[in-house]
Amino acid sequence: MPEEFWKKKEELDMMIKNLAMKRSTRIYRSDPAHISDVIDVINAAIYAPSGANTQPWRFIIVDDEKVKRNIREGAEKADQKFHREAPEWFKNWLKDNKITPEKRFLTEAPLLVVVAALTTMPYWLESTWISIGYMILAVEAKGLSSLTYTPGETDFLNTLLDIPKDYCIVAILPIGFSEEKQRSKPKRKNITQLVFKNRFGEEVF
Amino acid sequence: MPEEFWKKKEELDMMIKNLAMKRSTRIYRSDPAHISDVIDVINAAIYAPSGANTQPWRFIIVDDEKVKRNIREGAEKADQKFHREAPEWFKNWLKDNKITPEKRFLTEAPLLVVVAALTTMPYWLESTWISIGYMILAVEAKGLSSLTYTPGETDFLNTLLDIPKDYCIVAILPIGFSEEKQRSKPKRKNITQLVFKNRFGEEVF
Repeated sequence: MPEEFWKKKEELDMMIKNLAMKRSTRIYRSDPAHISDVIDVINAAIYAPSGANTQPWRFIIVDDEKVKRNIREGAEKADQKFHREAPEWFKNWLKDNKITPEKRFLTEAPLLVVVAALTTMPYWLESTWISIGYMILAVEAKGLSSLTYTPGETDFLNTLLDIPKDYCIVAILPIGFSEEKQRSKPKRKNITQLVFKNRFGEEVF
Repeated sequence: MPEEFWKKKEELDMMIKNLAMKRSTRIYRSDPAHISDVIDVINAAIYAPSGANTQPWRFIIVDDEKVKRNIREGAEKADQKFHREAPEWFKNWLKDNKITPEKRFLTEAPLLVVVAALTTMPYWLESTWISIGYMILAVEAKGLSSLTYTPGETDFLNTLLDIPKDYCIVAILPIGFSEEKQRSKPKRKNITQLVFKNRFGEEVF
C-alpha cells in the first residue's frame, strides 16, 4: 500500500466529521457576511471537474436589498404553484418539515449566490452540481451556513438578473450565519441499504 | 463576526489546497485497493443533501474481473457511437486530450464504483452529483485516485448489473492509485470571468 495512503487517513476522518456536522440553514442571523468571504467559497467551487473542462458555472452574488426582495417575490410565486402541484407524499414531507412557499431566507440572509450554468456545454448540470457540492463544504469549512434551494421555476431570474437565455439557473444559495437552535438531523439510510457488490442487491457487509 | 468564523479559516485553506492538487486519473497502478477503503469514501458521499431527504443514490462496487470486462466492453461500444456523433469542437477537445473510446481504466483500476440513482425521487440527478462531488474529495483525502466517467449510453449497465429500470446510472468511478506522471493541469478560467454582482455581467473585482 503506497505510503501517501496512510498519511491521508486523518484528512478523510476530518472531512467526514465536518460533513456530519453540516446542516441546511433556513433561518439566518442579521450579522453581515462579506463578499470577500463568498469569493473564498467560490474559489473552492471552481475547482470542480467539468465536462470537457468547459467550466459552465457562473456565480452572481446578490447583496442589494431590492434585488433580494425581487428574487424572493418571484420565487414565492413560483413555489406556490410548485407546492400546489406536488405529489401527495411530497406535500406531506414539506408539511412535516414545515417548508412552505414562504422563503424568508431569500431576504434575511445577508448574501445570496445565484448559480447559473451555460446549457450549451456538455454535462453542464452535472458539473455545476459538483461545484455546488464544493461550495457547501467550503461554506461549512468557513464557519458560515447555507442551503441549496431551487425555485419551482427559474426563468424569472434570467429576466431579473439580466442572465442570457442560454444560461439556466440551477440553484440559489443564501449565505450567512445560522440562527437555528440545534435540531434533529435528517434521518439517514444505513450504508448497508445503499451499497452493493458486483450486482444490484448483492450485499457487501 | 462570530468567533467560529475565524477558527475555521485554516480549514478552508486546506480544503482549497487539496482541491488544487486533485486531478482526474486515467492510468492506474496494479496495486490493489480494498473494498473497506471504498466504503470509507462512500461514507462521505452519503452525507450529501438530497431533495426531500430521499437519498436517491446507490453504489455498486465492482471488483469481479469478468464484470469489469463486460462493463468496459459495453462502455466502449456506447462511446464509439458517442464520439462519432459529437459536435466538431468536442471531437477536437477529445483529440487534444487524447481521449478515445478505449476505456482501459475500466479494467485496469482495481475497483469500480457504479453510481445509480432512483429517478422517481425529486432532484435525483442533482443530489447524486453532489454526492459524487463528495466522493471525489474523499478519494483525494484518502490518497487514492479516481475519475468521473459516464458512458454515452447507460442502459446496458441496468441489464449487466441487475439494476431495476427505475434507476439511472449516472457515473462510473474507477478507484485506485495513479500511475500518471505529473502533467499539465486543466487550464482554469479566472474567477473574475465567473463571478458577478447583483446582475449578470456586473464585475465584482
